[in-house]
Formats: sequence, structure tokens, C-alpha cells
Amino acid sequence: MTELNKLDATTAASGLAAGDFTAEQLMQDCLARVGLRDADVRAWAHIDSDYALQMARAADLLAPHQRGPLHGLPVGIKDIIDTADMPTEHGSPAFAGRRPTIDAQCVTLLRAAGAIIMGKTVTTELANTNPSKTRNPHNLEHTPGGSSSGSGAGVADFQVPLALGTQTGGSVIRPASFNGIYGLKPTLGLMPRAGVLLQSHTLDTVGVYGRSLQDLALITDCISSPDSSDPQSYLGMRTSLRDAYKKPLAIAPRLAFLKTLAWEETHQGAKAAIEDLADSLGEHCESATLASPYERILELHAAVFGAENAHYYGGHFISRPDTMSDKLRTRMAASFDLPARHYIDALNQREVIYGALESLLAGYDAILCLSATGPAPRGFDTTGSPAYNSPWTYLGVPCISLPRLTVESLPLGVQLVGTRGAEAQLMRVARWLDCRLAGA
Amino acid sequence: MTELNKLDATTAASGLAAGDFTAEQLMQDCLARVGLRDADVRAWAHIDSDYALQMARAADLLAPHQRGPLHGLPVGIKDIIDTADMPTEHGSPAFAGRRPTIDAQCVTLLRAAGAIIMGKTVTTELANTNPSKTRNPHNLEHTPGGSSSGSGAGVADFQVPLALGTQTGGSVIRPASFNGIYGLKPTLGLMPRAGVLLQSHTLDTVGVYGRSLQDLALITDCISSPDSSDPQSYLGMRTSLRDAYKKPLAIAPRLAFLKTLAWEETHQGAKAAIEDLADSLGEHCESATLASPYERILELHAAVFGAENAHYYGGHFISRPDTMSDKLRTRMAASFDLPARHYIDALNQREVIYGALESLLAGYDAILCLSATGPAPRGFDTTGSPAYNSPWTYLGVPCISLPRLTVESLPLGVQLVGTRGAEAQLMRVARWLDCRLAGA
Repeated sequence: MTELNKLDATTAASGLAAGDFTAEQLMQDCLARVGLRDADVRAWAHIDSDYALQMARAADLLAPHQRGPLHGLPVGIKDIIDTADMPTEHGSPAFAGRRPTIDAQCVTLLRAAGAIIMGKTVTTELANTNPSKTRNPHNLEHTPGGSSSGSGAGVADFQVPLALGTQTGGSVIRPASFNGIYGLKPTLGLMPRAGVLLQSHTLDTVGVYGRSLQDLALITDCISSPDSSDPQSYLGMRTSLRDAYKKPLAIAPRLAFLKTLAWEETHQGAKAAIEDLADSLGEHCESATLASPYERILELHAAVFGAENAHYYGGHFISRPDTMSDKLRTRMAASFDLPARHYIDALNQREVIYGALESLLAGYDAILCLSATGPAPRGFDTTGSPAYNSPWTYLGVPCISLPRLTVESLPLGVQLVGTRGAEAQLMRVARWLDCRLAGA
Repeated sequence: MTELNKLDATTAASGLAAGDFTAEQLMQDCLARVGLRDADVRAWAHIDSDYALQMARAADLLAPHQRGPLHGLPVGIKDIIDTADMPTEHGSPAFAGRRPTIDAQCVTLLRAAGAIIMGKTVTTELANTNPSKTRNPHNLEHTPGGSSSGSGAGVADFQVPLALGTQTGGSVIRPASFNGIYGLKPTLGLMPRAGVLLQSHTLDTVGVYGRSLQDLALITDCISSPDSSDPQSYLGMRTSLRDAYKKPLAIAPRLAFLKTLAWEETHQGAKAAIEDLADSLGEHCESATLASPYERILELHAAVFGAENAHYYGGHFISRPDTMSDKLRTRMAASFDLPARHYIDALNQREVIYGALESLLAGYDAILCLSATGPAPRGFDTTGSPAYNSPWTYLGVPCISLPRLTVESLPLGVQLVGTRGAEAQLMRVARWLDCRLAGA
């Protein structure tokens, strides 16, 4: 029999619906893979096999009309997202043993759609930059990226078909790139943040991982929902990504290839790979740039991140510095007294640069760029550079990473970027590009 | 013949409609009063009698169907609000001779409703706290308050029936109180701010002055409009205040009397006056308090004001310190390096305290409090304390000041405060209270 854990979520959902196998069998194969690999990959902050199997068996008892779109599918949840039946420790000794009393809204929606929360995946310390224990499944000597380290590695290593991550700088798309999987960082506020550790209300974004584009569409449709408690919740229309996926573009898209401000620090092999890819698209892809003050975008993102991070983590920084790593303490100290006027400037410039991006995308269907500055770095001093991600997080725009490049035998993602709320359009462009690159 | 300048705007509008007098005659009487009093009161930053009369004559030529609700009524415009046909100098030598190329949106709406912009009224330096040249018409040795000094004094002195002001701390309601006129500081973003000097996007609010409640309703209805260029524009429903005024409350309201945090610094005579007033309302008025963290509200307002002020005025502070008064330079220096984390806290606490205010107002129709800490102070070192105003500006809620108290032979306002967007309800409560106090 096939190893069921190797199926992507969409295929597994079909198999479950057809009665080819049970949720329990699917979970068993996923857990077997964890058993085989966990000592090396270390993707899980918490996993209880008996409990996961028990929930899978309960799902198998549901009548067909009780089964949601994610029926029986295991999902890994980044450990800064609250779960009432599992610890949520934020990757920090300050929260050791913390057990929330209620699920985060996105977890509630996953369970309502039939998903089985398989366990909590490793996050870097407080979803910041200090690396975690997780290893890259493609080469255990390399970082899996962060901060959604366990979600990226677990999905890539066939331990779980779907996972939630969060991105404040580059924490969803960079792990997708380093681990060779599909990732979606949606528009700010598309998915509810209630019950997710808050480090920057202007930037924090819940995102998803899968092993196919359709998987991203499937899980996104189930958790894309307004959050009345969150002033940053996206208020525009939410279009089904599954429907969008099913309607291929009638005309090939026009892509704007952006080297971005990260180009100087980009790995030579990665530069060659994305330039070859852009060339191969011929008339469908043109080099482009963004108008001023785009050149300040990394500094502006850093000001917003630093200021809000200092606000939300400042209490710990002052009262429990012993629970913080040197790396995080140093970062906190650097932005702790950032003047408010710089922060306000950074918030205001955001809409100016977004206006420039909207202007550019009036002439193109999406932006094409790398997902990271190169393949996953060797070693564990860093989770890699977010320079290809933080600008898009700052602007609050959707990004999809496709695992379609290989550099030095390691995966590297191709990133597509759209305007706020344009996930459905971006999904159709991503399908076109993904098919084209698969065929090449 | 009556002095037409003594008519309130509502009465003048009826007279114009009935053909009892012309817009030119009304303007002549207003200008005559200015001629008589301007050397003492000094309410105007710019006024051109010939031009004002020319516009009034042009208005008289309009056919009845071309006449708007403010047809022929002179309006004074605070000199931080742009006018394309008059200078707008922000009360600062740095902007001497500045002539905008386009009217502010609120001025456009006034002209569209038929108003005649009579001139620009004196503002304190950059609408901040450094006093202006204007004097209180009730006693020329006393301040008229600020920052909308000329608008308050000009309306009180029968030089103009209506005027626009702006409030970031207490700049609309305090001059209304000190000058003995009616003032409305509406919900944040009810009236468009495009073309108004920006010193704090979270606080700056356009407001209005008149010599009756109906006048406030009349002018507010004409300029209450969404502003798509302004993220702070109020997005809720805008109900006609004239319609609200015409429907007296069927049942007497319940008022929550708040001494507020300003009580300690309040003039003894003012304390006695408002306590007597509250007592006189009997069962219609109860003492109340606001829940924590309301006790921090003055400091939180100051953090938002200081941070945003430093952002918007910071350029001048650095490049043109010579154009700033010592007073303003000292204020700027004090908040220039305010940490962003304190500013973010102040923004976030705002919604918490607003929640407490909503809870309180679930049981009452409005809050009743003083409009200022006492009558206008003697001398010109200060424009008075905004401690009865800045909390409401911070919360973005509507306030109406009624000129119904007298302390030491000077006017003092009674303030009513409601929830965001509840101007119509507040207007009906204000009518009830105003009639009751007039009858007493």
C-alpha cells in the first residue's frame, strides 16, 4: 500500500471521500513518519500520537453529511497559535507549560472544517529570529528557515500534509522556499489572528503550507474569515481560491520581474536561476522596478516591526530578561527607544509605496521574484535573510511561493506577489506558472 | 433697522429667504461690526471687505432654486484651513504669505451650500498652545482661548454668525466656553480634513461655532461628509442634525454627570456652578465615573498628540527652529524622542477606554461635564487648560458646548458628550438641556 503520508491534502481528501482509506490510517502513516524522522528533523513542539489517533477515529465515525472540506486531514499548528487541548509555548521558556483555555479562531475554523490538529510545530523564540531546534529535511546540516520552522519542515518531510505558519518578516515564505514546499502569505488580516501571539499588529499574518497549490487553496478557503475583534482584519471580498484554481487563465499572464533591494545579497546561483526562469518566460515576463520611496522599504519595515515588537514584548524584556536569548534581547534593545515620529513615518509611507505597487500591477498580473536570497544556509546561527519577504509583509500584500528552483541540490522558491485581496487572481497566475515550470 | 449681524445664522437664513434683507446688507452689518471692534478683539488673520461684499452681491443674484441652505451667510474660517482666494498662514511666520491653490474640502462644501467665506480667523501658532493676538470680547483683558481663538471671539462678538475651528486638544470647545457661544466638536472624521493643517491624524477634528444650537445643526449638516483621502474619516451613518433638532425628545434624558480628572484644577466658582446645575436636574442627572484605565487618559492623549505632532511638525522643528516660538519649541523638544512603544500603547488603550465609555452610555443619554476648568483666565500667557476637552478628543467622540453658565461675570460652557457618530442623539439631548437652562 502507498504511504498515505506522501499524499498531498487534496489527494488524501479524495481518498477519504472515496473510502479508499480511513482518517485513522492516514494519521497512522503520518505518525509513523514522525517516529522515523523526529529525532533528526525535530519539527514538533508537542505531539501526542494516541490523542491524534483518537481524534482521527472519531472523525471516521462521522456520517458523510457531517464531513467538512478538511475532513480527516492532519494539520500542524505553529506553536504561537493557541490550542485548548495542547500546550502553546511560543518557543520561549517564559511560556513553558502554558495551556490556553480556548482555540485560536483559525484553529476553530480548521476543526469546524473537519481537520485534525496533529500537534504543535516548532517556532523560533517568540516567532522572532533566534533559530529553533528544527533541521532542514533536505539536508540536516542546514536551517529550515524560520520562524515557522516546524511547519515548513514537517510538511516538506511528509510528516503532515498541511500546516499553519505566521509571517511578520519572512516567516511563512522563507521556510516554504528552504523546505521546497508551497506557501501562501495572504493579505494582512485575511485569516483571523485572535488567539495568535501578537508581536506587530501591522505585520503579523497567518499563512499556510501544503505540498501543492490546490492544497493552499483548500486550507485557505476554510480559514479565510473576518475577525471583528481585529481592526486590521481584511474587510474586502473573500473569493474562493478553490474556485479560482479550477478556472485556468484564458490568456497567459504578464509578470513583472523584480530583482528587488535584496539582489545584492543574493546567492550567485539563485540569481542565475531566477534570471534563467524569467528569460524562459519570454514575452510573458518583463523586468520592472518600483518607484520611490520603495528604496526605503526595508528600513521602514524594520521601524514598524521594531516599534510594535517593543510594545508587545517590552514587558518581558523588562521583567523577564532572563527568559530571552541574547539574540532577542539585543534586537529588543535596538528598537526599544525608537522615536514614535519614525514609526508614524513608516506607517504613512506604507500607503505611498502601496500606491506605487498598485500602479505597477495595473500593467501586470503579478510580481515575480525569488522567495529567498538563496537556498537554506548551512548551520544554525541564522534562519536566513527575510529581505525578499519583509517588503511584502510591510505592504500587506499576498505572496505565493512555488518550489520550482534547485540551487546547490537544495530547494529554492519562486515568489508571486499581488495586490491586497487579490489572492484569487494570484492563485490563477500561480497555477499557470507552476504548470509551465513543471513541464519545463 | 435691526443690526443684522446680531441675528443667529438660522434667523438670518430665514430673513434672506423671505427677502427681508439681502446678503449684501447682512455682510455690511457684519463688516461694520468688524470695523468697530477689530482693533480691540483682533479676531481676523485676513479680511478683505470689498471682496466679501462682492461675493455677497454675487449671492444676491442667484435665483431661489440656486440657493443652498447656507445661502448668503458669512462664515469665518480658521487660518489653518486652506482657502484658494485668501492666504492661509497657520499663525506662523514660517507660512507668511502662503496662498493655497485649492480650497480645503470643508470650505468647498460651505461654498457649495451658499456660504460666503468672510475671512480667515486668527489661530494660535500652528494650532498649538502658544497664544495669539486675539482678545476675549467679554473682557479684553482675558484670553479668548485657543487654538480657534478668532473663530470663537468673532462669533461671540457678532462679527460673523458662523465659523469653523479645529480641535486636537481643546481647541473648539474651550473657546466656545470662554466666549459664551455654542460649539460642536464632532466625531473624529465626521467632517473632511483634506486641506486642513495636519498636526495629529488621530486627534485633529474640524468643528463649528454658532450662536444657537440650530446654527450648529445647520452648518454641520452642510459639511458632514466622508473623505476618501483620509483613513480616519468616519464611515458610519451621518444623520441630519437639523432633522434631529426638529424632533424634541419624547422622554426627558438621563445624564451622567462626570467631574472628570480635571476637577482638582477646576475654579471653585465653576465647580459650584456645575454642581448646582447637576442638582437642579434632579432625577435626570446622576454622578458617574469611568472605569480604568480612564485615569491615564490625559497622559495617553498627550502621548498621541506629542508623537504625531513631532512627526508632522518635526521638519520645521529641525530645519526652521527660528520660526517657532520658545513655547512651541519646548513642547516639540519634550515629545520629539517619545518612544514608539508608548505611542502604540496610547493608541491601543484608546479603544479600551472607549469601551468603558460605551458601557457607561448604555445607561445614560449623554455625559454632562464642564467645558473648561473655569471662565477665561485673565492675561495672555496661556489659552487655558484643555483638561475637560482632550479626553474626548482622544476618544474621538462628539461634544457640544452650551453657553449656559456665568462665573465672575464671564461665560462658561456646559458640555455634553456622546458616543462616536451619535451627533443626532446628542443634539436632541442638547436641545432639551438648553431649553431647560434657558427657562430656569
